[in-house]
This record gives sequence, C-alpha cells and structure tokens, in this order.
Amino acid sequence: MPLDAALAARIVQAVDAGFERQMDLTADLVRFATTRGREHACQDYVLAAMQQRGWATERFAMDSAAIARHPGGSPVTADHSDAPIVVGIHRPREETGRSLILQSHVDVVPAGPRELWSRDPFEPHRDGDWFYGRGGADMKAGHAAMFAVFDALAAIGLQPAATLTVQSVVEEESTGNGALQCHLRGYRAEAVLIPEPEDEKLIRANTGVVWFRVEVAGLPVHVSQAGTGQNAIEATQGVIRALRELEARWNAKRADFRHFEDIDHPINLNIGMIEGGDWASSVPAWCAIDCRIAIYPGERPETMQRAIEEAVTLAARADRFLANNPPRVTFTGFTTEGYALEPGSEAEAVLARAHETATGEPLQDLVTPGYLDTRVYALYDRIPALCYGPISENIHGFDERFSMASMRRVTRTMALFVAEWCGVEPIRP
Amino acid sequence: MPLDAALAARIVQAVDAGFERQMDLTADLVRFATTRGREHACQDYVLAAMQQRGWATERFAMDSAAIARHPGGSPVTADHSDAPIVVGIHRPREETGRSLILQSHVDVVPAGPRELWSRDPFEPHRDGDWFYGRGGADMKAGHAAMFAVFDALAAIGLQPAATLTVQSVVEEESTGNGALQCHLRGYRAEAVLIPEPEDEKLIRANTGVVWFRVEVAGLPVHVSQAGTGQNAIEATQGVIRALRELEARWNAKRADFRHFEDIDHPINLNIGMIEGGDWASSVPAWCAIDCRIAIYPGERPETMQRAIEEAVTLAARADRFLANNPPRVTFTGFTTEGYALEPGSEAEAVLARAHETATGEPLQDLVTPGYLDTRVYALYDRIPALCYGPISENIHGFDERFSMASMRRVTRTMALFVAEWCGVEPIRP
Repeated sequence: MPLDAALAARIVQAVDAGFERQMDLTADLVRFATTRGREHACQDYVLAAMQQRGWATERFAMDSAAIARHPGGSPVTADHSDAPIVVGIHRPREETGRSLILQSHVDVVPAGPRELWSRDPFEPHRDGDWFYGRGGADMKAGHAAMFAVFDALAAIGLQPAATLTVQSVVEEESTGNGALQCHLRGYRAEAVLIPEPEDEKLIRANTGVVWFRVEVAGLPVHVSQAGTGQNAIEATQGVIRALRELEARWNAKRADFRHFEDIDHPINLNIGMIEGGDWASSVPAWCAIDCRIAIYPGERPETMQRAIEEAVTLAARADRFLANNPPRVTFTGFTTEGYALEPGSEAEAVLARAHETATGEPLQDLVTPGYLDTRVYALYDRIPALCYGPISENIHGFDERFSMASMRRVTRTMALFVAEWCGVEPIRP
Repeated sequence: MPLDAALAARIVQAVDAGFERQMDLTADLVRFATTRGREHACQDYVLAAMQQRGWATERFAMDSAAIARHPGGSPVTADHSDAPIVVGIHRPREETGRSLILQSHVDVVPAGPRELWSRDPFEPHRDGDWFYGRGGADMKAGHAAMFAVFDALAAIGLQPAATLTVQSVVEEESTGNGALQCHLRGYRAEAVLIPEPEDEKLIRANTGVVWFRVEVAGLPVHVSQAGTGQNAIEATQGVIRALRELEARWNAKRADFRHFEDIDHPINLNIGMIEGGDWASSVPAWCAIDCRIAIYPGERPETMQRAIEEAVTLAARADRFLANNPPRVTFTGFTTEGYALEPGSEAEAVLARAHETATGEPLQDLVTPGYLDTRVYALYDRIPALCYGPISENIHGFDERFSMASMRRVTRTMALFVAEWCGVEPIRP
C-alpha cells in the first residue's frame, strides 16, 4: 500500500534535514583507506555506529571451508581480507511489515598513482555538487545512507516495523565472499537493497566475474644471445592477444543472453596487472598477468574458467617455446555468476514508487557488466535483489566522485522504500 | 721475448698443482650472493685475500660527481651499489717489466626464479667438468684466477717484475662505473687483462650499452567502462613494437661498423622487466618497462638516447591517447660506448703466445654484443685492453656454469702472459 503523502513528505524533509550529518559520516568512512585487508578499523567504526543506534550487532570472520563448499564461493587466497563482517539488526516492537536486508561494502580498490589524483584520495573533499575520494561513490556514500535512513525515521519518532538487517561487508571488490558469508551465516529477509552507485537506476541484470592469473615462463639467457632465449614479457603478448579474441567471441554471442542483446560490449576483459623479469640485461624468465573477465548470467564460472584455460593452451601451442613450457592459469578471486532481477516483484514496485516520490521521475533500469553482491540474494536466497544508488564518476579511477544532490535523492528513495516495505511504528508506544 | 720453455713448463705445472685451491677460492666467492648493492662482504673477503698475499691495498667508494662529469659515466640512481671497490697492488723489487692491470667484477645479476635452477644458485657445486652457480662463470672464476696466477708464480719462488694492480670492482652488470672509478682514481698500466667468460677467445670488438626505462600512463576507469579508458599495459605494447623496429633499423646498418659486418644480429634489445597496474578489476593507470639495447663502437650513447626517445615519441603520436599523455623515457644505468681492440699490439702477441703454449691452439678473436669493462681502458687509457676467459654456459640464465678444464687452460694462459709481459723475478734475492 503506497505511503500516505503526508508521511512521505515528513520523511523526505527528515532526510534533507539530516543530510549534512550524513555527509559527515560519509567523510569519516572515506578517511579509512580500506583497501583489501585494511578494513579492520573501519569495520570497528561501523560497529560502534550500529551500537549507538541501539541495534543488536554481530561481528564475524569468513568461514573459508564453508565458502569453498558453496557454488558461489571464490578462492580464498593469501591476499584475501581477514577483516570481519559486521551486521546490525533492528527488530521492531511488533513485526508487522516485510523484512529487509540493507548491505554495503567498505572495501575499496587501490587509489593507484597519487599524482593522477587532484588531491589526497583518502582525504574527502567537496567541490560544488561533487564529493571526492576513493571509495566515496563505491560505496561509502551508500553505506552512510543506510544509517541516514534510520536516523531520518527516528527524527520523526518512527522506526521500521519489520526486522531490518544492516550488513557491512568486505571482499566485494575481489571475491564477493563477504556477501556470501552473510548468507552462509544464515541471514535472510524478504528483499535486499544494495545502494551501489548506479546513476539512480535499478539493476535489471548483471554479469558474473572471473579473475585469473596467467604465468608465462621464459628461457633466460644473457642478452647478448637474446635470439636463443625466450622473452617471457613478449611471449605474454601472444597470451593477451588470445584472451582478447576470447573476449570478442564472448561478446559476439550476446544475442543469446536476455537483457544483454542490446549492450554494446557486455563482456569486458581487463589486463589489470603485469609483472615480469628481474634485470634489464637478462632475458626475462617469467611474466605474470592478473586479469578479470565478465560472464553472462546463467553461465557457470567453472565452465568459463575451462574456456579461458583452453584459449591460453591453444595460444601456447602456436608458439614453439610455449608449447613446451605451457603458461599456468590460476583463479585468484571472483568466481561468480551473474544474475537478473525478474520484473514484476512487489519490492521493485515499492522501490519505483519511492523513487518517483523522491525524484519526480519514473524509475529506469540498467544492465551492467560488472560484479554486484546482489547476486548472492538473487541466486541463493531467491529474493528480489535491488541494486540502486547515486550518480557518480570515475569509480575505480582517479578523482572518484559522487553527486551529493543525487545522493540526497537516493537517500529519500531508500527511506521511503524502507517505510513502505517494512512499514513504520512509533519508537515509543 | 718469448718465455723460456722450461720456465713455461714450470709455470703450467704450478697452475695445475694449485687448481683445486683455485676452485675452492672460486666456490668461496660464489657463496657470496653479490647481487647489486650486496657486494660488501665479498669485497671485504677479497681485500683480506689481497692482504694475505702481502699486496698494498686500497678500498674506496664511487665518486658520483666525478663519474657524472666523465663522458663514460653512467647515471648513479637509487639502485646503484654503494659497495666499495678494492684494489691490491703488487710492486716488484725491481721494475724491469711492463705494468699490468688485472680486473674482475664481483657483482652478479639476479638469480631469477629459484625453481628454474637445478640447485641453489649460490651454493656452488660441480658435476663432471661443469662448475655451477650464479656468478661462477660471470666472473668469479676469472676473479679467483687473478690470485691463482700469483700463487702459481709464488709456488716456484717467483713474482711479477713489474707493478701489477688487481682491481675488484662492482657495477659491471649495471653501469660500468666501477671500472671507470678505478680510472678516475688514477690507476694506470701498460695493458689490462679482464678474464670474462669468452670461450677462450680474445675480444676484438664490443658494443656499448644503454639502459632505459619507459613509463606509460593510462586512464584508469572501472572495468565495466573499459572501452572508455586506456589500458597502460596494452598501450606499452605499441612502445615495445616501436623499439623492436628501432632495433631492426640499427641491425640493418651493421655493414657500416667494422668488426660487426658479419655478426648476424649485433644489436640486441632486451625488454628485461615490466610492471604495471594495481588491481585486476581496474584499468591499469601505469606501466613501466626496463630495457637494454646495444650500440656500435664509435656511436655516442647520448646520440643513441635521443634516437630512443624519438622512437618512443613517434610511436606515441600514432596513438590518440598517448599523443596527449606521452610516455616518459629515462636513462637508468649503462650509458657506455663500445670499443675495438686494434690488432698488432705487443700485448696481444704476448697473450697469443701464452694461449698457444697453454692450450696448443692458436688464439682466435671474437666480436661480442654485450658490455665489457675493457671499454674504460680502450677508450680512456688508450692501452691494449684484453678480454679473455673461460668457456661457459648460461651466464645471466639458470644453471650458469663454467668448464673447469677450460678455466685451468685460461689460468695457465694468464700466468704465462703475466710472466712474459711483466717479467718475473725471484721473490727472495
């Protein structure tokens, strides 16, 4: 049942009134340089923020064995974060509404070279409508909004009338194991909302992601005899070419995948890191690349991993040296399926109403070629999994930023969504 | 005047008798893992070995300012070794012969991946005629031979009848500044012999070497928008292609360079190291390659550096993104000229006689496309600069090894050469 217009107006007003405080919380979160494995202090800060609001809380580690057994688990390598997951649980006085999970991740990708940033990436700053900082858009703005929704309702004496679980996870940028661990821990609800920066649109479908590493061996000799050796750095180029051909083949079959028919280039391969050789004057004996590629919803990561291995093997067979020294392919992170949000759910209808009230525009949807934690809820909980969040620029790039006006609209939408989906009750009877 | 046959026979016998001790000294030297900057302990060991033999010694540091002023100086970067140079000086009772410098370097190139070695690279071992270990061939075998020559003469009561300076240097594998520093320090002689592993041949001509680094900037974006970014790792491939074309052009002009007309591929470019990117799922913002290329004798390194810069600039102009973000070329090590040993010197004639006596074969010469410290003496002292040493395999590669039978022949040659060039006198009058 749509929200009463007067209540909706009071909620919007309360969100707006709390917006500066919300930006302060966002700034606090951005100041934690939470690259992979360094999320500990930030998660403790989040836990304290949950406790201040009177929620029940849990803080727990990944269960590597359970993750390994689950089809949605990604490899837990040496680089894997050992920071805890933090969960806050609001329980109503009377459970009259529909339960909900709100989830955000605190991990961020590396800032990259400092000189490509206009300012310190971990010192948030504002310029006009833009709020700058690594991880601000992706996704500490959304993280702070989860608190702002509660704070706005509380400011007008209300709270959700259903169990609302707020999950602060890690490993979203590398494995998706944080979201999976919440599922493995047993948290369930009737819907989930994840406020990733999605240009105020609702994600309709999303690819899966596979990370892999290819290690190429060379034959090191003194450079004066370079012709008799095999340069591992240059041999790697043949592997990259083969992977680009694989990417082209995968993009060519997009017509077979609903929601992706009209996406120009749904399958992006990224050669993200390279390292090789020990000495300018020695023919390099080794070179390794770290890569990421998308897979369509419905494709199994294991099947696509075999296709990647095969592409590398075929490329190696065409090379005299590599045929005898085949490159090694290992899977080092994301091993995740894509998902689609089936249209027609009540949760989507409620979000669409909230969005229209908050922004005056109809809710549009979006198909994205990246990884999203919503896949856990869509695939394994089989609940409406809503990914929706603010306008941003340059996530994973330099001068990452989000629009504060957009974030304000998104927070209104989230608060209106929570109020209608969960219902509200007075804090004091 | 050729050595008396009976004396020559006694010297050969003394070398052979001392050969096991010589191999023990070689093994001691190989056990020091003297990669760049880690030669301190080894140089102290060498100093002690010189003092045990009663030589005057000097131990001194590089003079960066003097190196920078000299046309043969290479850049002193942060990676430059700060290990000392060690010099031992034998002075005869009566200066009746011709003075000589014997020089070896103790620095070695990195061992590379341990798994490519059959055994620990810094634990020397023998298998049949092969003596294995990183830096054994290049050039601790030659280093130990400098002592073995003295020890062999001493065993039959003799010593060189001229000033003989034994120089133990560093930075031969990266800049050539160690040899240059000996020159700057003022050491001079009428000839120099450097026992690098040259298959029992005499180096007739040798290329110069230039090291350089190319840094390529990319435009980092989230991989889901990879098409709008610029992958620095892949952009680097265009730079590598341009450098390979430069290499081909330089090889094509070999007919213009005496001694190099008939060398199949005198100019070797090596892409020795690569590093780029921070995250598998971010389009890499940076990539850097460390390279080495040879230049012909008579070419000035500065001129060839300009040609390298130009090749990179032209490659960048052909790329929409790189044209606006030109790669940066820096010069990071070797900036050295090649040299030729003019035929007809008395020093060469003496070496040829010694070689023939030691091996029964005429001395052959060799043109090499690498760097040799002999260039300092050929170019700046303008003395006969002899580079001659044992048969080896896989220098700079894995399972580096030298032939002990060859090393024994080379040591005989060196001892006979010293005896004839410097003359001999009884140790005790």
